[in-house]
Amino acid sequence: MDYITELAEKGAVAKQAARQLATLSTAVKNQALLAMADALEREQAVIVAANAKDVEQAEANGMVRPLIDRLLLNEARIKAMAEGLRQITTLPDPIGEVLSGWVRPNGLSITKLRVPLGVIGIIYEARPNVTVDAAGLCLKSGNAVILRGGSEAISSNTAVTAIIAKAATAAGIPDGVIALVETTDRQAVTAMLKLNKYLDVIIPRGGAGLIRTVVENSTVPVIETGTGVCHTFVDATADLTMAQDIAFNAKVSRPGVCNSMETLLVHSGIAAEFLPAMLERYHQAGVELRGCPETMNYHQAVRPATEEDWAAEFLDLILAVRVVDSLDSALEHIAAYSTRHSEAIITRDYNNAQRFQQEVDAAAVYVNASTRFTDGCEFGFGAEIGISTQKLHARGPMGLAELTSIKYVVNGNGQIR
Amino acid sequence: MDYITELAEKGAVAKQAARQLATLSTAVKNQALLAMADALEREQAVIVAANAKDVEQAEANGMVRPLIDRLLLNEARIKAMAEGLRQITTLPDPIGEVLSGWVRPNGLSITKLRVPLGVIGIIYEARPNVTVDAAGLCLKSGNAVILRGGSEAISSNTAVTAIIAKAATAAGIPDGVIALVETTDRQAVTAMLKLNKYLDVIIPRGGAGLIRTVVENSTVPVIETGTGVCHTFVDATADLTMAQDIAFNAKVSRPGVCNSMETLLVHSGIAAEFLPAMLERYHQAGVELRGCPETMNYHQAVRPATEEDWAAEFLDLILAVRVVDSLDSALEHIAAYSTRHSEAIITRDYNNAQRFQQEVDAAAVYVNASTRFTDGCEFGFGAEIGISTQKLHARGPMGLAELTSIKYVVNGNGQIR
Repeated sequence: MDYITELAEKGAVAKQAARQLATLSTAVKNQALLAMADALEREQAVIVAANAKDVEQAEANGMVRPLIDRLLLNEARIKAMAEGLRQITTLPDPIGEVLSGWVRPNGLSITKLRVPLGVIGIIYEARPNVTVDAAGLCLKSGNAVILRGGSEAISSNTAVTAIIAKAATAAGIPDGVIALVETTDRQAVTAMLKLNKYLDVIIPRGGAGLIRTVVENSTVPVIETGTGVCHTFVDATADLTMAQDIAFNAKVSRPGVCNSMETLLVHSGIAAEFLPAMLERYHQAGVELRGCPETMNYHQAVRPATEEDWAAEFLDLILAVRVVDSLDSALEHIAAYSTRHSEAIITRDYNNAQRFQQEVDAAAVYVNASTRFTDGCEFGFGAEIGISTQKLHARGPMGLAELTSIKYVVNGNGQIR
Repeated sequence: MDYITELAEKGAVAKQAARQLATLSTAVKNQALLAMADALEREQAVIVAANAKDVEQAEANGMVRPLIDRLLLNEARIKAMAEGLRQITTLPDPIGEVLSGWVRPNGLSITKLRVPLGVIGIIYEARPNVTVDAAGLCLKSGNAVILRGGSEAISSNTAVTAIIAKAATAAGIPDGVIALVETTDRQAVTAMLKLNKYLDVIIPRGGAGLIRTVVENSTVPVIETGTGVCHTFVDATADLTMAQDIAFNAKVSRPGVCNSMETLLVHSGIAAEFLPAMLERYHQAGVELRGCPETMNYHQAVRPATEEDWAAEFLDLILAVRVVDSLDSALEHIAAYSTRHSEAIITRDYNNAQRFQQEVDAAAVYVNASTRFTDGCEFGFGAEIGISTQKLHARGPMGLAELTSIKYVVNGNGQIR
């Protein structure tokens, strides 16, 4: 089947199925999620066999080891995927929630309710667990989903989707609520970005290149996720022990994720006291250091930072370090280079803490904590479909509520205007 | 100045100004709105003179009388624009509102706050009052705005913008918060749609053609507004007097707006009783009737409806009428042709009312009231910037709250992950 036909067929079925799904009870959706989890565990041999094909192909193509590891599915990982679905059943169902309501002077009663978005397109790379995770979150929030994973995982994704979709249907979910684009032709992505007739939103999950492609080419509304050039500013009054622990954690605990710190800003008033030990600790941990001229005075391992370094999302054990002479300079630097994801100040000064949180424009703005907490689970949402770095619709970690829209239900007794 | 330079300059200034505006108090913003209102009234001679140029040009171009009337500014209309700004000062400031907050087990305190979107682009047609209205709503919600009005109103818009922007600046609002694209080159719109560096969102206000152009070409996130193919379904158990009044009001009270009814659906069980008098009332009011074969039996003025008529937004005294044999048929028709704006059922049946409100996918779903109530003022929002027909970010009438985003402010005392 060519991709145009595939997308049109799956889109039309998903749109129809979404209408029915929107009216199903929480109990039915939870039963389906549990059935999907059981099916994954029951059919794990099928999944492992399908995954072996992807891994074999990846090795033949010379894929590097860490990426092959991300691709790999084994008993433990399949169990984790199933547990993820069971976890989603414990989350409150957002659909039908009354957000507000009031009566107008003419007697019209207006109620604002949460409803599903409809049909969500998810375009993602590599890891097959996203398939299960995204399908589960969309189902619980009453949305049909059309998944488009990376071609490297096509065999795994096809097997996994077939298993969970079948289990969902058997549990009373309309056919077509969970669909995978099986054509690996890259043009299918381009076509999906123009599928306004059937898709209500597209969420890209992956590297900066994928996200840019989606934002630049989609006519379907997009929720942009993920790019994080995050800063930590160590103010003149910071508790330097706390500052060192937070700044170390923000860079080193998991450098490959979007909420890790990429640039450390240090107030000139404490730079001489703070930076030598801090830089040595990074150096010992294998962090490559790129600094401004003053920073270079405090440790011999620091290489000069270029203009590109200030704007870089390294996603690696690389850190840019700059000494700034005031809170204002820190705010200017952040305004110029931040991707508005997560920003932190370490300070004991009340006014500076207030100003930083008010003036920094980012999804999450921290005082005296690591930027690494910007995450659906750490925020207490129970799960996340991604971290929005745009301002429209959703910002920051997106849980089930961020996969919903609203509807005004208006009750009258003959009102005319 | 060429439009590329103009957009880049105004965009950069607006982005910088938006950072400062975001931190201003409600009192400062309200003072500015009052100063803008006073300035409009004080300088009305300047506005009327500028408007006369637009009107003269429009007449020379052979613009039809109703459009020239929309374009015209006189003392009463300028006073209404000023009053609109004063009205905005009475609305609650959405910025800084705490939407929710909680403490995590590790002691991190998370607060979800309303913040401005940043810089809003508004692309609109004809009426110069939109310039003032949009500028006022954006200012109150802490957003900078870049306005692009129709070329027919360029002289009026330039005069009005200069007056209100100057008054705002004198009242302490950063320079550049209110900007107008003065180049009338149509390419300026295309360039604006790609101005991701400076614009956080674009809201088009105008006809279906403008909205389609924006949705199809913008890489900046868009809030789609306005197209309304709205239905009223008269159920078998409807109070027929109420049904007639509502169906008449929904079509005739103001046919040129998006919340007016375009298609009347009537249950076959009451068609013979309901339709003859209803159709005659429309006919007397000058409504052109296009119906299904059964409808044609009930009045000789009814012409056959084509497939295009079911999907048409007439915005005129034209009505499509169809007899359906069940609630399910009505729901199917609505699902097929609705633009998801406003839909109504007239019924005395509890279950049908419930099903209609649950199953119809639209911004506003009415029982026993006219679709004409879908409007920011009628909903009690005090003002509106438009009516969103998309599901992302905002749906239905958009007031000040819909011009905001959120920010998570996180307070810790050394938390690391």
